Amino acid sequence: MAKINEDLNREREKCSFNVKELTILMDGGPEKTKERKERENFMISKRDTYAGIPEDYLSYKEQYEKAVKKSVIVFGLVRRLQEEGKTTIHNYRDVLGNLLRASDVSTGFPLALHYIMFMPAIINQGTDEQTARWLPRAWDCNIIGSYAQTELGHGTFIRGLETTATYDPITKEFVLNSPTLTSYKWWGGGLGQTANYSIVVAQLYTKGECLGVHSFIVQVRDEETHMPLPGIKIGDIGSKLALNGINNGFLGFNNYRVPRNQMLMKHAQVLEDGTYVKSRNPKLNYGAMVFVRVVIAFDMANYLSKAATISVRYSAVRRQCQSKAGEQESQVLDYLTQQHKLLPAVAACYALKITANKLWDTFNTVNEELLAGNLQRLPEIHALACCLKAISTYDTATFIETCRLACGGHGYMHSSNLPTTYSSAVAACTYEGDNTVLLLQTARFLAKTWQEIDNETGKLTPTVEYLKTTKSKGFSHKWLNTTDNIVYGFEVVSMRKIASCVQNMQKRVASGMTFEDAWNMSSIQLVAAAEAHCRVIILSTFNSEIKELTKTTSPELKRVLSQLVDLYSVYWALEKLSDLLQYTTINHEDVDGLRSWYEDLLTQLRPNAVGLVDAFDLKDEMLNSTLGSYDGRAYERLMEAALKSPLNSEPVNHTFHKYLKPFMRGKL
Amino acid sequence: MAKINEDLNREREKCSFNVKELTILMDGGPEKTKERKERENFMISKRDTYAGIPEDYLSYKEQYEKAVKKSVIVFGLVRRLQEEGKTTIHNYRDVLGNLLRASDVSTGFPLALHYIMFMPAIINQGTDEQTARWLPRAWDCNIIGSYAQTELGHGTFIRGLETTATYDPITKEFVLNSPTLTSYKWWGGGLGQTANYSIVVAQLYTKGECLGVHSFIVQVRDEETHMPLPGIKIGDIGSKLALNGINNGFLGFNNYRVPRNQMLMKHAQVLEDGTYVKSRNPKLNYGAMVFVRVVIAFDMANYLSKAATISVRYSAVRRQCQSKAGEQESQVLDYLTQQHKLLPAVAACYALKITANKLWDTFNTVNEELLAGNLQRLPEIHALACCLKAISTYDTATFIETCRLACGGHGYMHSSNLPTTYSSAVAACTYEGDNTVLLLQTARFLAKTWQEIDNETGKLTPTVEYLKTTKSKGFSHKWLNTTDNIVYGFEVVSMRKIASCVQNMQKRVASGMTFEDAWNMSSIQLVAAAEAHCRVIILSTFNSEIKELTKTTSPELKRVLSQLVDLYSVYWALEKLSDLLQYTTINHEDVDGLRSWYEDLLTQLRPNAVGLVDAFDLKDEMLNSTLGSYDGRAYERLMEAALKSPLNSEPVNHTFHKYLKPFMRGKL
Repeated sequence: MAKINEDLNREREKCSFNVKELTILMDGGPEKTKERKERENFMISKRDTYAGIPEDYLSYKEQYEKAVKKSVIVFGLVRRLQEEGKTTIHNYRDVLGNLLRASDVSTGFPLALHYIMFMPAIINQGTDEQTARWLPRAWDCNIIGSYAQTELGHGTFIRGLETTATYDPITKEFVLNSPTLTSYKWWGGGLGQTANYSIVVAQLYTKGECLGVHSFIVQVRDEETHMPLPGIKIGDIGSKLALNGINNGFLGFNNYRVPRNQMLMKHAQVLEDGTYVKSRNPKLNYGAMVFVRVVIAFDMANYLSKAATISVRYSAVRRQCQSKAGEQESQVLDYLTQQHKLLPAVAACYALKITANKLWDTFNTVNEELLAGNLQRLPEIHALACCLKAISTYDTATFIETCRLACGGHGYMHSSNLPTTYSSAVAACTYEGDNTVLLLQTARFLAKTWQEIDNETGKLTPTVEYLKTTKSKGFSHKWLNTTDNIVYGFEVVSMRKIASCVQNMQKRVASGMTFEDAWNMSSIQLVAAAEAHCRVIILSTFNSEIKELTKTTSPELKRVLSQLVDLYSVYWALEKLSDLLQYTTINHEDVDGLRSWYEDLLTQLRPNAVGLVDAFDLKDEMLNSTLGSYDGRAYERLMEAALKSPLNSEPVNHTFHKYLKPFMRGKL
Repeated sequence: MAKINEDLNREREKCSFNVKELTILMDGGPEKTKERKERENFMISKRDTYAGIPEDYLSYKEQYEKAVKKSVIVFGLVRRLQEEGKTTIHNYRDVLGNLLRASDVSTGFPLALHYIMFMPAIINQGTDEQTARWLPRAWDCNIIGSYAQTELGHGTFIRGLETTATYDPITKEFVLNSPTLTSYKWWGGGLGQTANYSIVVAQLYTKGECLGVHSFIVQVRDEETHMPLPGIKIGDIGSKLALNGINNGFLGFNNYRVPRNQMLMKHAQVLEDGTYVKSRNPKLNYGAMVFVRVVIAFDMANYLSKAATISVRYSAVRRQCQSKAGEQESQVLDYLTQQHKLLPAVAACYALKITANKLWDTFNTVNEELLAGNLQRLPEIHALACCLKAISTYDTATFIETCRLACGGHGYMHSSNLPTTYSSAVAACTYEGDNTVLLLQTARFLAKTWQEIDNETGKLTPTVEYLKTTKSKGFSHKWLNTTDNIVYGFEVVSMRKIASCVQNMQKRVASGMTFEDAWNMSSIQLVAAAEAHCRVIILSTFNSEIKELTKTTSPELKRVLSQLVDLYSVYWALEKLSDLLQYTTINHEDVDGLRSWYEDLLTQLRPNAVGLVDAFDLKDEMLNSTLGSYDGRAYERLMEAALKSPLNSEPVNHTFHKYLKPFMRGKL
């Protein structure tokens, strides 16, 4: 093993807590840690079989081709685990998550949607018969599926989708059509060149009536030749900011026919004669959306942990400027401005992971209730998942970019892996529901809750119960600079923002505006209210869960985690200071105190910064970064990576003779 | 010409002002507009000679090769203008700016640094003899130069550079060496494979003494064969987030000798016997840095104008969601949340352009004073350029990303040109001085000014004069929701922040901290103070200049520009509300009033949104965007662009047969 950078050695020596203890705590126990590491090591051990020139040097087409090559190896490993019974239809998402995180396929997998959307759609929306027919083939990857919902002209507004599926009772088939350019399906992962099947979401027409969007299993390419089938127009949508191995595709239909039994009919059905049978409860599909959005919050914690690890380690290695003449230059991690950029990001990794964990548990409880026919908590949990998705993706993207910029010029190099980490993570602000739209959905739930709050005699559902408490108690006590008080302050802020939105809406409606116009004119503040609610959820969950979790940890770990919670809460208190100034009793001196406390916390956490990111336990193969490796050989790796640039394979590029030299001699 | 989208037609019909009038106003008069358009059209007319597959589909190496090909055509055109006398050594930066903006070389030019850094270094730092020898060859592009200052281990801290240039009086040469890995030059544009000369910044040693960093003209490749010269290790640093045609390179020396007369000796000299003659005034070089940073502010206004044009036009074309049942779906530009994302960005384009213009004029005045030996305003103007560079780059990157995200999934497509616009602009947060470091330089000047404020009997230099006024007057009057009052509020905020920083520093020093530690512990607040100062400069300049400029415009234009200034000031008042709440008399009701005013301004500006971006007069060839074209055919262009993806050139990619099919049959 190569020598470890002296500065990093020193950082690790002075770490006040046991890093392994923290890793195990966050994994959920030593067994979980062991399991995770086994899967990761399994994946990493196969790396050599699909290494090669880094994706950043390849053409778009080559990136796709490499992604296919890597995919069949990675998913081949998944299939091996399936065959060995180490992963089943019930736990494959977990296993897959560990494996994919341990692969270095930074451009994404054209086969990912097959597992993440195609199979779940069959499981959740297919009849027993349909599942029996399609799932085994999908599970064995005999067929590869995509998921085609979004169209060129419609994303957010699903009701506006234009693709039609018209039932023909004579042939007992659905006839699919793309009546306009904007009705072309757009974005389906793996849809371009990879998948031969896809779930297609289309407007169902039967007996001359439009019955809204439904899902269909549609074959798009020949299983033998992979040629697009007649009536299908399919292809690649082109180059994107990142994730260019995913092979997002477009798809159009010209009188393309699929048998009746390929509409997914668990909930609603079309009978042979074309009679439509409604779903018992159309809201049941919300469960799947909640699930996907919580998974995104976990993904975000993972992306951010990568960026935080890279930038904290590099900041321990990088030395710049003599703060005192004659002395060695300072580690950039010693600058308070650098700590201000990195340590809140580190805290956010823990906060997001812990909130997602908690929400995951809540979701599982609610899901069981759902399956038992109790839909009471669905609106609450849906609203929660919406805002958590929005805020976790936005915060993550912002923190990653801050981490990247904190690494100066080298953070702009692809070999640092920070650019790709940002470009990939920021996509989540848009997919699975645009953040603004999702926050407005949360706001709709909050406004409704608020309007009914006085009619509710009992408790509200747990995550909004604070609205009732704060409404009756308000914020009249003297401000205290403690995390518990900050959390309470945020609860009051959220309550007051919701109250104020509802009041403004009512005023506008009373003055003659339509509800829709009043909603639109209040929407900036509604978004802010939904954000405030989400801040309450994350802050209070992080605060209470860490208190709970550290009951049984070592006092050293308890101390650092409690500092981390404090840092996170003070950071957000200062970021959202105008809210606290407006809605609580915080005064000028308190604010000064808050700032000093923040500066002190940064100083206290500084010696544990490297330990806190080491605890994420991200192996070098997963970080894939010249700046962030465990050994801290940042400069050596930067140079090694540069020498791999294809431009360096020859001393003189041919364009010198062809273009440059004639130009320099005035001949061009 | 293709049919123009109906929605865009309607937007243009309802625009309340004359778009051309605004374009001419911003250009600085009809002559300037004519000149700019001629240069742009000249460039655009040559497009066909270097078109081809979009860069996003090429490999890294191909991107470089295409950038060279394009460069010799583009700079060949520049040379033609030179020969025709249409551009001279005195005005070439202007001409070059217009031409480069009108080219579509999104990956950047490997020859750009030759014009932007290599030639100016010779002009500013060379003796008459050196200029006479080198400039004509550089001007004719007989030689191509780069600029090598930053090293692998040092960027910000120039005094820490490690490359050495040791004078050998026997051979009358400097011996260049790279004593460590971290001393390798890193980042020089065009340095990898393109340039055959470079300015090299190195620690000068003569007579056994180190005399700090000096600049040298160094040949790095053979003029005939382009092979790296013996003693030179040179190459490409590898793939970056964007700008991969710039060919940033690394450079190391092993006892590489250059003649004595290749040290640039206008200011300091090394005589034949090795005697060192100091520069009369080492601060003279600051002038060049100020210049570069103001140019960056113009660049930012340009990048942001692109992003704003694309996203506003697309938001007029895109329709999503029925706000009222049965009606046509709404243009997304009608949503207040969308206006909130886009219109402040539009206002910022105007604010930045106008502030940069003003600073440019100020700089020219100060530069004349400098040349006349009067250095009095240098610290002020240097501090101003530092914070303007930092804030203009940060704001621009943030607004561009907001514009990009406001375009949903399609904003993630390279064909929208938003990803590249962001990735290129955000680089400016780092190059030419990291933003945090620059803001701390501004803060140092402000702190110094503050400490001397009571000793100054006369007026302070103009851009900090407000500190004195606000110090004596404070903010005791009742808050008014007007832009003039907001500007004054920001002045008070800036003054109070600086005062508070200085006080905190003094307290810390009094308690026994060293000055350096006190500075570090105050640095988060010092950065905030410098930002506040810059907000004052931009807000007050935008406010006063628009008042001045609109004295002679039509009343319609005056009205919309004044709304734009109001929007910009209210936007920042709300963004920085916590400062106003702390340091002014603004109260809860005022804040509510501010929010309503903001919502009203968005509504008032909404009908002119398209007109305001049309006035940037960015031709389709310059926008290079499927979403942002003048005709609004966004969906058609998205599909046309997708069909150009190399993956779509064949119905089945070869990886199907090689990898996918065997995998699907369980054979892999």
